[in-house]
Amino acid sequence: MAFFSDLMATLFERRPASPPGPSKRPISELCEALLSSQGEISGVRLARDILSHYRAMSLDERVSFFQHLAQDLDLDPVAVAEAAAKYGTTRSPEDLYRLCREAEPRRQELLRRLNQAPGATEELVRMRLDLLRLVPDTPRLRVIDADFQHLFASWFNRGFLVLRHIDWRTPANILEKIIEYEAVHAINDWHDLQRRLRPSDRRCFAFFHPAMPEEPLIFVEVALCKGVPGSVQALLAEERETESAFDTAVFYSISNCQEGLRGISFGNSLIKQVVEELKRDLPQVSRFVTLSPVPGLARWLKELAPQRPEAEALLRAEEPAAIKALADDLRKLTAEYLLKAKRSDGLPVDPVARFHLGNGALLHEIHALADISPNGLRQSRTAMVNYLYDLEKVEQNNESFVTERKVAASKQAHALLMQGQTTGRKQ
Amino acid sequence: MAFFSDLMATLFERRPASPPGPSKRPISELCEALLSSQGEISGVRLARDILSHYRAMSLDERVSFFQHLAQDLDLDPVAVAEAAAKYGTTRSPEDLYRLCREAEPRRQELLRRLNQAPGATEELVRMRLDLLRLVPDTPRLRVIDADFQHLFASWFNRGFLVLRHIDWRTPANILEKIIEYEAVHAINDWHDLQRRLRPSDRRCFAFFHPAMPEEPLIFVEVALCKGVPGSVQALLAEERETESAFDTAVFYSISNCQEGLRGISFGNSLIKQVVEELKRDLPQVSRFVTLSPVPGLARWLKELAPQRPEAEALLRAEEPAAIKALADDLRKLTAEYLLKAKRSDGLPVDPVARFHLGNGALLHEIHALADISPNGLRQSRTAMVNYLYDLEKVEQNNESFVTERKVAASKQAHALLMQGQTTGRKQ
Amino acid sequence: MAFFSDLMATLFERRPASPPGPSKRPISELCEALLSSQGEISGVRLARDILSHYRAMSLDERVSFFQHLAQDLDLDPVAVAEAAAKYGTTRSPEDLYRLCREAEPRRQELLRRLNQAPGATEELVRMRLDLLRLVPDTPRLRVIDADFQHLFASWFNRGFLVLRHIDWRTPANILEKIIEYEAVHAINDWHDLQRRLRPSDRRCFAFFHPAMPEEPLIFVEVALCKGVPGSVQALLAEERETESAFDTAVFYSISNCQEGLRGISFGNSLIKQVVEELKRDLPQVSRFVTLSPVPGLARWLKELAPQRPEAEALLRAEEPAAIKALADDLRKLTAEYLLKAKRSDGLPVDPVARFHLGNGALLHEIHALADISPNGLRQSRTAMVNYLYDLEKVEQNNESFVTERKVAASKQAHALLMQGQTTGRKQ
Amino acid sequence: MAFFSDLMATLFERRPASPPGPSKRPISELCEALLSSQGEISGVRLARDILSHYRAMSLDERVSFFQHLAQDLDLDPVAVAEAAAKYGTTRSPEDLYRLCREAEPRRQELLRRLNQAPGATEELVRMRLDLLRLVPDTPRLRVIDADFQHLFASWFNRGFLVLRHIDWRTPANILEKIIEYEAVHAINDWHDLQRRLRPSDRRCFAFFHPAMPEEPLIFVEVALCKGVPGSVQALLAEERETESAFDTAVFYSISNCQEGLRGISFGNSLIKQVVEELKRDLPQVSRFVTLSPVPGLARWLKELAPQRPEAEALLRAEEPAAIKALADDLRKLTAEYLLKAKRSDGLPVDPVARFHLGNGALLHEIHALADISPNGLRQSRTAMVNYLYDLEKVEQNNESFVTERKVAASKQAHALLMQGQTTGRKQ
Repeated sequence: MAFFSDLMATLFERRPASPPGPSKRPISELCEALLSSQGEISGVRLARDILSHYRAMSLDERVSFFQHLAQDLDLDPVAVAEAAAKYGTTRSPEDLYRLCREAEPRRQELLRRLNQAPGATEELVRMRLDLLRLVPDTPRLRVIDADFQHLFASWFNRGFLVLRHIDWRTPANILEKIIEYEAVHAINDWHDLQRRLRPSDRRCFAFFHPAMPEEPLIFVEVALCKGVPGSVQALLAEERETESAFDTAVFYSISNCQEGLRGISFGNSLIKQVVEELKRDLPQVSRFVTLSPVPGLARWLKELAPQRPEAEALLRAEEPAAIKALADDLRKLTAEYLLKAKRSDGLPVDPVARFHLGNGALLHEIHALADISPNGLRQSRTAMVNYLYDLEKVEQNNESFVTERKVAASKQAHALLMQGQTTGRKQ
Repeated sequence: MAFFSDLMATLFERRPASPPGPSKRPISELCEALLSSQGEISGVRLARDILSHYRAMSLDERVSFFQHLAQDLDLDPVAVAEAAAKYGTTRSPEDLYRLCREAEPRRQELLRRLNQAPGATEELVRMRLDLLRLVPDTPRLRVIDADFQHLFASWFNRGFLVLRHIDWRTPANILEKIIEYEAVHAINDWHDLQRRLRPSDRRCFAFFHPAMPEEPLIFVEVALCKGVPGSVQALLAEERETESAFDTAVFYSISNCQEGLRGISFGNSLIKQVVEELKRDLPQVSRFVTLSPVPGLARWLKELAPQRPEAEALLRAEEPAAIKALADDLRKLTAEYLLKAKRSDGLPVDPVARFHLGNGALLHEIHALADISPNGLRQSRTAMVNYLYDLEKVEQNNESFVTERKVAASKQAHALLMQGQTTGRKQ
Repeated sequence: MAFFSDLMATLFERRPASPPGPSKRPISELCEALLSSQGEISGVRLARDILSHYRAMSLDERVSFFQHLAQDLDLDPVAVAEAAAKYGTTRSPEDLYRLCREAEPRRQELLRRLNQAPGATEELVRMRLDLLRLVPDTPRLRVIDADFQHLFASWFNRGFLVLRHIDWRTPANILEKIIEYEAVHAINDWHDLQRRLRPSDRRCFAFFHPAMPEEPLIFVEVALCKGVPGSVQALLAEERETESAFDTAVFYSISNCQEGLRGISFGNSLIKQVVEELKRDLPQVSRFVTLSPVPGLARWLKELAPQRPEAEALLRAEEPAAIKALADDLRKLTAEYLLKAKRSDGLPVDPVARFHLGNGALLHEIHALADISPNGLRQSRTAMVNYLYDLEKVEQNNESFVTERKVAASKQAHALLMQGQTTGRKQ
Repeated sequence: MAFFSDLMATLFERRPASPPGPSKRPISELCEALLSSQGEISGVRLARDILSHYRAMSLDERVSFFQHLAQDLDLDPVAVAEAAAKYGTTRSPEDLYRLCREAEPRRQELLRRLNQAPGATEELVRMRLDLLRLVPDTPRLRVIDADFQHLFASWFNRGFLVLRHIDWRTPANILEKIIEYEAVHAINDWHDLQRRLRPSDRRCFAFFHPAMPEEPLIFVEVALCKGVPGSVQALLAEERETESAFDTAVFYSISNCQEGLRGISFGNSLIKQVVEELKRDLPQVSRFVTLSPVPGLARWLKELAPQRPEAEALLRAEEPAAIKALADDLRKLTAEYLLKAKRSDGLPVDPVARFHLGNGALLHEIHALADISPNGLRQSRTAMVNYLYDLEKVEQNNESFVTERKVAASKQAHALLMQGQTTGRKQ
């Protein structure tokens, strides 16, 4: 094992202590050299030069660089069409090769060759992030993104990702990034981080890629509990009782770390692999749920308010205490929102619901007063829900969800819906 | 560093102790499921099933499977042509996306998803090897290879490879593969291997890929010497003097290990990275040469023999001793062969020369009686040559070689050529 | 974890690439310098000098060196006696400190300081081996061994040892030592080694010390079986069926590796830790036995032969086939030998029995025709036995063995003894 | 390398996830069992029981436990005296063995056997710390400390220690201890720690022991500078210029971490090994100095004040600004203090001076206004000094220091002394 683990160390060490300054040649010339046959020989050096050139560029220069990629290194649609026609006739391997070659923009090979430089993968992810930020103002640049996406889908293939346990023994430079990237329940400082990682009822897992070993791609925070929790404040309370008779693992926060990998999805794999990991290490844990926000609820209630006084009442509440008397209504309306509010494509309006239901999870429980923070009150009037991951059923749930737009839900959720609708009708 | 190195261990451990038996569903159905939206959910399991199915197949079944990939999961040339035409007109990002999607055979996505399974990369490399072996009999299958090549070029991108020092402390299962894959000067057994790895004047380096940590991709064996060596037997002699005043590193054997990665070239990068590594560790070593066979020489002499009595004389020699008197002629003819014998594309006939000159090396010295083994006598009448790697000049050499077909050669080589041609003319 | 594992790498790397040549000063002067206060400053360099001096010594010079240690760096018995008397009166801590200081030969501190040099621990173990080999001719030198033993007992304390799984992924330089040190059933070559390590029904474990990471201290080879095996040839047969329904782990070979650590016992701890390890990894394995030789049996039969015709018959057998008819007698006599043949201190004559019974094992089964090799025939007329390690009972067994000299044995063993004695009496 | 590094991981993992509760038997009985032959069998379990018993004890119970060790497990002075007399007569190895056995208190073997339990080394270090804290009130217990010291000197032998680079990639649980143990210039929080570790002109190194891999034993913080620094505030300033043309490494803080290892000295080795490490990694650094406090200066000035008005003036200064005008006097008096103020044994009064001069360093430069913190003003009126480590001269310096009590000092320091004495005389 150890020999193999050393491979990674080598990968990492390859980074140059002090990268050379940018070359004096214009970047388009360097790109051409890298793409030419000459590039095969001096690829690493050229790639390093181009990346170091890029790093030193102003925003305007980056726009020009991307425009160069978009216009001058595009594919030639006429040549593609001809090659396709030819292959349609001959069906010969040679003609397929030609078609594939013609159908790939030259910039894609450029990006592939740039990746030869030490540490390049990380820089290319950042380069795409720059691109994504420029697209709104310069939509034409979006053509380049097809190539980034195609390459990243290959490079960040699930088969190359590595799941790592994150704990208080993890190197500080990684932990620092966990603090930075936490997107759901902010981590304030190192003390707060310690509270998330050190107690015996907490776990954290992240995916890494071998070529970016210091950058987590996505991570999930897990709390071990007795029973299904109905309040995130209770879950994170510092003075909670640390049960040792855990039977439930709660995924209470999932954070994507790399904006530059937008569209390359890891969350589904991460949750499933973590479930398997926990099952192996903690056989006593038999239930795997989330404690998830309902981010679109308040907006939906607002639309509903004119017709439904109980929605309006909920929206009027100025602090959690005021919700208490309305808890039943909140739970019923949340059930209705998650089970009935659909987009034009038939999928739920709520993005978190779409994510977990799309992963094959089931809508399990609905809680009022579950997130009494200002943000919880604002976005969902304190409601939160548990999605349940039952590995035996995720495929079937997912299939029904995808093909029939059917939301898998517990009896409790259906009962709430029924009650709510009855109430709604009565009013 | 250690944290990062652990990532790799995790990668490796992910392999299932006992992989599940093949599923009962037909493989084409499994492939369809993996490609469908359902595949996103249960990808790892489906991929594992398909691969385990594949492993259990007979040769005929594999042919059918590949035919399925070739025919049923191809791209649609008509759709490609239409998408190309559309993009030609609009130049809109959406239309480029559509074109890229249409121009990619569905089997490529299938292979990408198969790679999710633990240990899949290695199996896909083997699958391509099966394919390459079937192509001569079923040329139609070569269409699939375009997809393998495209993916492998991304996956085995230089930026993801890891250089490892191989020595007597390397795990036995890796060393076993070094014995198996050595292609130039066979390693007979473990004792022989030890002689290649253990002495202080020997080095060995290999490239690995993080997802195939137990499989070297290519390796090079290095001997440290005083001066440029002119005999492989002397170089490998067991009783040689172990100089400590080395000034020369000799690459005397380079072996590709993975036939399934044919066409994905690593040798060029390997040599250059090893030169850099050795320069750092052994500052006293200032010269980097090969001691290379001249595999096409005897064949070329045979063609030449009718007109050139000295070639005929060389071909008549039945043992190395007989070459002794003809050593000068042999060296002159070798120079002529390497500098003048060209293919229709203007590149040297000799494949080893093409490889090293194409890497930017220079033809440095030519030796007679340098390989007196039966094989050396047969293929090159005992001649061997040194190619010199001077990192300062490899780019320029390579450029002249590629653009002008110019062979970089030392004065000694040119002098031999001149003498040989003078002799030739006189006769 | 990884951070901590790196510690070891550092330990290892500390060894000098090329140790300096021996200093010109006489070794006794260097030793004096190392022991003086000056030594604190330049200890590492002095220690390295002394060890390199020692390595270069002839046998005679080593004898002189040891004599110097024995005579000139001894304790002073008069000073010890005085300090003891003083402490007897005052019982003051200061006087105890003085007594401890006086009661420690100066050479002990010398050895402790020698250990500062990189790689010194291994060299000191070799130095003691030299000493042990000289003692028979120069018994006076044995005084030094008290100091080696005292230090090694501290340094090689069980708490510092590390259990490692040895398999086909272990570095070749370690495996080479497994071949070299195997003491029970010789490993002929690398192919043979592979057969011991690679099959799924084989395991091997070794103890290492952090300061000698390339030197196993002791190792045990384990075979997984269904049922308790009664033949070592069957156990090691190349074409055996590889059961997967293992229920028994068989320790069929235990080898001490470091003669220089004689008297520092590891075997007991090793077996117990391996039992725990296997229990955790292979819950289906519920029985832990040895398959052990009976090395003293033939000698004992020879003594017995005049009175016991069945012993004489066994001794006459010239090949295993001839034992077949006498198998019952052989098993009865083996039971008698192991249960009744005692040394003057009441412990069994058989050294292997003493080891395992002393560890708390129980004499479980007795087999004839269990080792049909020439050596098996010679030393035990083909008999072998299983000792059973039942962790629940080892303490109690050991206590009875130590305090009452009682041999824990199965009903089968007792029954054989009874039958044998009945037969014996009848004749 | 990797194989060996894994050894450590194993060491570490051995710790039980949940240690068993204390046994019901009284601890003295458990100790007796561990010391008896029975202990050999069940040593690990007994050792674990005793340690877990100890952990659960109240302070009073610990005193009783130590008293048991002191009285009941002591050596027998009469037996020692007899054995010494016998060995004095016979000089036989057997009698030496007997003497050694008698001269070792039984508690020493007990401690050795306790160390078999996983994680025991760390617990024994803590146990000694308990002991050291009890000794002032119960001086009799100090007899036990002889045994702890003897064992720790063997166990923590320089040859077993491991030097580790500490940086921002070090695991958080180790870094947390660096914050906790920093003894010279307090680290306030994680942000402050980052400033000590992350900048390119900072280094930190620590010694670890393989059996306590999560506990640094001692660490040193290093700043890289251009020239010899004369102010700790400037050295630690957040906005300093980060020179890349470093020529000097400054050891500005050395902290012992384990009070339980008091008397086992590591600082000398640490500094020298770090000097060697830095020389190898940063060849441009040619000077190695400390920036050290002068903790006893103010006290000495107070004694001097009656006779020396310039000392009195310095003591009157209420803030650093007031020292400015007196800087010359301060530097002269500091020179006088370090070169002339001696204890009865002839060594300098100043403890920091004793440490560095005893290591073979040279008193290099003396600075006023070098530590303008309240503590710096209080203890040394803002003076600090550089001690210079010149590896070529440390031995010679140390020898003169130890044998002739000679303080190695630069010309500048001697010049200051001369001026000061002249001034002093004049007044």
